[in-house]
Amino acid sequence: MRREEFDVLSREEIDAFLTEASFGFLGVMGSDGWPHMKPLNYAYTCGAIYFHGSAKGEKMDDLARTRQVTFAVAKEYAIIPSTFSDSPVACPATAFFKSVHIKGLADVVTDPAEKASALTALMQKLQPEGGYAPIDPEDARYKQMLKAVAVVRVSIEEITAKFKFGQNLSEARREIIISRLEERGRPDDAATAGLMRAYAPSSGTEE
Amino acid sequence: MRREEFDVLSREEIDAFLTEASFGFLGVMGSDGWPHMKPLNYAYTCGAIYFHGSAKGEKMDDLARTRQVTFAVAKEYAIIPSTFSDSPVACPATAFFKSVHIKGLADVVTDPAEKASALTALMQKLQPEGGYAPIDPEDARYKQMLKAVAVVRVSIEEITAKFKFGQNLSEARREIIISRLEERGRPDDAATAGLMRAYAPSSGTEE
Repeated sequence: MRREEFDVLSREEIDAFLTEASFGFLGVMGSDGWPHMKPLNYAYTCGAIYFHGSAKGEKMDDLARTRQVTFAVAKEYAIIPSTFSDSPVACPATAFFKSVHIKGLADVVTDPAEKASALTALMQKLQPEGGYAPIDPEDARYKQMLKAVAVVRVSIEEITAKFKFGQNLSEARREIIISRLEERGRPDDAATAGLMRAYAPSSGTEE
Repeated sequence: MRREEFDVLSREEIDAFLTEASFGFLGVMGSDGWPHMKPLNYAYTCGAIYFHGSAKGEKMDDLARTRQVTFAVAKEYAIIPSTFSDSPVACPATAFFKSVHIKGLADVVTDPAEKASALTALMQKLQPEGGYAPIDPEDARYKQMLKAVAVVRVSIEEITAKFKFGQNLSEARREIIISRLEERGRPDDAATAGLMRAYAPSSGTEE
């Protein structure tokens, strides 16, 4: 059953996560009856998801058949062992994560200027240090590439998110887990502890 | 167009990646016309993917309507800036990754022993240090939980994988990128350089 306390309602937080994450999965129903799911680097710009790829292949065949696509992005934070809850049984073991789910409509972008600006947004995200000539449809070095590469825009029809950071726990249990994460000190543990505090149901309200 | 040099043919390598990764996306066609995609921790055991969750909700409603599901797992390794190729343009920028795509048939597991062994496999993966009572359907502390939790088995109908580590590059360009990764030294850079060597088309053959 979907637990509402995990649902993220602030679009700013969803947008920040989509801007920060480097790849997501595109899901498109295949003609074989199975959803086809491909990991893709993407840019989130002008309110849409953009990705690029070869103009030929299964992905483009699928998109020629249907515009209804899903784009899903997730990041796993700390895995919380059952022992963090001082429990003799395995049940309290869990994992904390951010997850965004977009139902969208896909269109192949044909305008060279829109292709160039989508690829520019992708480069700014994945190579923020720069070091390449601006992607310009008038630049002879890019003209052929821009013609050959397929760029797809996914317009967002519905966006939902689940950020799970122990919002359902009692304050006492949450505090114990936070202190054990800080003690353990694995790469994502401090960030997870910070997000547990940030998303605690009481945060921002007086008690 | 799908480039065959990235396709992984060894089932051992696919299995090792599925065993190592902690979560994947389950994709099921929704009644609304969009694939529904959810990130889930999973165990890969007895040749199947197992996950657990609430017995009620959208995921279980979707699975009651269709058994045809996709399970996709990916890990992004280093992002390779265009500057690693000494190029004045953005085009050589890329990202290296491992990706596995499973077309499967989903069944809700009802046998308490199979549920217990799937959850045991999940715990062994995510909490290898142990510290909890063995999950046993005869143990009173687990009986109620095992009845309440839904466990789903995805039997594998088709499994494909793409491990992209510069297999399409010339040996000279590959060597330059490897040395720049080793120089840059970000968290996944050394592992990426190692995988570029491991998957180089010439590896294992005499030149």
